[in-house]
Amino acid sequence: MTILSGLRITECAAFIAGPFATMSLAALGAEVIRIDPLEGGLDYHRWPVTAGGTSLYWAGLNKGKKSVAVDLRAPEGRELAQALITARGEDAGIFITNFPATGWLDFEKLKDLRSDLLMANILGNRDGSTALDYTVNCAVGFPLVTGTPGETAPTNHVLPAWDLLCGMTAATGLLAAERHRRKHGAGQLLKIALSDIALAVVGDLGLIAEVQINGEDRARHGNHIFGAFGHDFETADNRRIMVAAVSLGQWKTLVKATGIAESISQLEQSTSLDFTREGDRFTAREPIAALLKPWFAARTAAQAAAALDSEKACWGLYQSFAQLVNEDPRCSLANPLFAQVHHPKIGATLTPGSPIDFTSCDPVAPGIGPILGQHTDEVLLDVLKLSSAQLGILHDKRIVAGAER
Amino acid sequence: MTILSGLRITECAAFIAGPFATMSLAALGAEVIRIDPLEGGLDYHRWPVTAGGTSLYWAGLNKGKKSVAVDLRAPEGRELAQALITARGEDAGIFITNFPATGWLDFEKLKDLRSDLLMANILGNRDGSTALDYTVNCAVGFPLVTGTPGETAPTNHVLPAWDLLCGMTAATGLLAAERHRRKHGAGQLLKIALSDIALAVVGDLGLIAEVQINGEDRARHGNHIFGAFGHDFETADNRRIMVAAVSLGQWKTLVKATGIAESISQLEQSTSLDFTREGDRFTAREPIAALLKPWFAARTAAQAAAALDSEKACWGLYQSFAQLVNEDPRCSLANPLFAQVHHPKIGATLTPGSPIDFTSCDPVAPGIGPILGQHTDEVLLDVLKLSSAQLGILHDKRIVAGAER
Repeated sequence: MTILSGLRITECAAFIAGPFATMSLAALGAEVIRIDPLEGGLDYHRWPVTAGGTSLYWAGLNKGKKSVAVDLRAPEGRELAQALITARGEDAGIFITNFPATGWLDFEKLKDLRSDLLMANILGNRDGSTALDYTVNCAVGFPLVTGTPGETAPTNHVLPAWDLLCGMTAATGLLAAERHRRKHGAGQLLKIALSDIALAVVGDLGLIAEVQINGEDRARHGNHIFGAFGHDFETADNRRIMVAAVSLGQWKTLVKATGIAESISQLEQSTSLDFTREGDRFTAREPIAALLKPWFAARTAAQAAAALDSEKACWGLYQSFAQLVNEDPRCSLANPLFAQVHHPKIGATLTPGSPIDFTSCDPVAPGIGPILGQHTDEVLLDVLKLSSAQLGILHDKRIVAGAER
Repeated sequence: MTILSGLRITECAAFIAGPFATMSLAALGAEVIRIDPLEGGLDYHRWPVTAGGTSLYWAGLNKGKKSVAVDLRAPEGRELAQALITARGEDAGIFITNFPATGWLDFEKLKDLRSDLLMANILGNRDGSTALDYTVNCAVGFPLVTGTPGETAPTNHVLPAWDLLCGMTAATGLLAAERHRRKHGAGQLLKIALSDIALAVVGDLGLIAEVQINGEDRARHGNHIFGAFGHDFETADNRRIMVAAVSLGQWKTLVKATGIAESISQLEQSTSLDFTREGDRFTAREPIAALLKPWFAARTAAQAAAALDSEKACWGLYQSFAQLVNEDPRCSLANPLFAQVHHPKIGATLTPGSPIDFTSCDPVAPGIGPILGQHTDEVLLDVLKLSSAQLGILHDKRIVAGAER
């Protein structure tokens, strides 16, 4: 038995937050039914794509789900989708969407079909206006403190961090609401705005207080870790290594592994700083980095790694995506996170399952991205208990479609 | 009633992932008890700090929690912590730690005290070796594709995205495990490695497949949105605006708002591209940006905003943290996400609650970061049912401490 065996979730969503939420729950064993228009959703062709045009992004964010293709412009198609969203069962009636919750997706209308429906609506802004990861990120400060000190232009992040965090927050919220429904019988609408996800984090990390209490606007510190010591260094073989000394233990191991104890002691005396205090390490980040730079420059990455490991210092090697995939054993079948999964339109790739290891439940094998409409018939027969004749009529009228078109 | 009313979680953790997980659950109404050593945990002085040395970071990531201070080096203190972790109650027995699950934190030992314990152990790497957000991020590709094209040095992110996602994943995992325990009675140990969080996302977004199937190592595209159109532009008053045209609708509104339809049509003809296809917009990102640049340069940010809003185009203004706090209405009491919260050592600040709005449950007021040891007596009396006399002895022996020291 998997941790979420039996739970059924439906989804009308696109891009990252919504699909990532349900993908993550599917990876814990939930049955997830993604409902898409006949031609595929807004994200169906999102890059990266294969030479044949299949979206690797869509396949990745929808793996382990069932795909149902319905004409969502037709009233009959919308009714089918509503019936799937509100189908019976104490472990069903859980729905996620990032579309406007109006018209056929209006919560009150859906509640008429299932009174204890749990529905998560992911919004851009709380007022319903549009926002994407990119247009939220620019507003919340981080691009202006990312990148080389002295530059004034913003540096966007490439990782869609707010989308991912929003999706996982929605997953947490739906499980909290399902717990509440199980105890008290009540369904409800959850609203989650992407911009609120980012605003909350800015507050959680103390950045709002830094402005309001300290009167400070965080400066750009390049690759230095703020408030402690951490930086990247180039090695003799032109690789780069990131070292981190956030805790006192990490600081001691770094100093020992690199043999700079005496120079550090002199630096403490000349600056009247105490590097057992993390803030003092940050204050002296440039001279500390200057002491470490020649040590790395004199060693290959392998030599530096061996020395750092011998003292259990905290470090990491910079890798491109290709280097990660081709050279890092953590990104291989040696890591139980991954399995080799074959997708009929893509081929075989290293595919992750859930990063959570539930040690007393069966693991869920990493899923495969569905073919659009692959599960239309199966779901309509099983969940809505349609007859084969009814299903045939829906196909004939082009209200639904299977995988072969 | 709040969505997680009654749930009790204990925590022995530091830095971001663990504390963020429980902070997020406290913001949904769970009772969270953070157990720290008498002098505070590893993160107790983490920057940013006030002039008086109080950590704004610690206050932010622990708000809404109860703080218990115990001498965790003393066997008697460890037994008290174990008793709190394994205290009875069907809504209790949920524990999160990012410390090594050995010695007094060994899962099997704790299970002897409560057989259905749910324990989430956050690790650096799956093998138990150390890794932080910074040393994971460098390994998973993103720093080498962030920042100006042509640069070769990596650009670290400033947002601790992997930590935050790891914390929220742990929250999801614990609620999934609590659901399973409620249905089947079984406790369990959850293991979550920070590096697996990042590796899974690299796979989920199609980046592993891009290497393995397409043989491509993602290039650096600066502030361009990969695979669609999006970029930043400078305005006449030296502000910057990010525009995004990921969906076809967003593209049409952008073209209309900026009046570049004719030039775009000519560009499509001269390049034989079709900008209704998102990939073609990405291919022509430089000439498209060149068409938009003068439009922004000729307008103030306010003028550009008004024109973009009139067509409901998708855009955002770059803001520093101070600009966000001082100028953006979303980051103010006008947004129900926030309340003004007074912390005795910090003062009054705008403080976020949960970004999830459960429309049929009572909201949880944004919490306050506790004073270290503030709830020691309350928790030991209420949860462990100690007598005042027993409590007095523990204080006399300096096994526990309250807030006043």
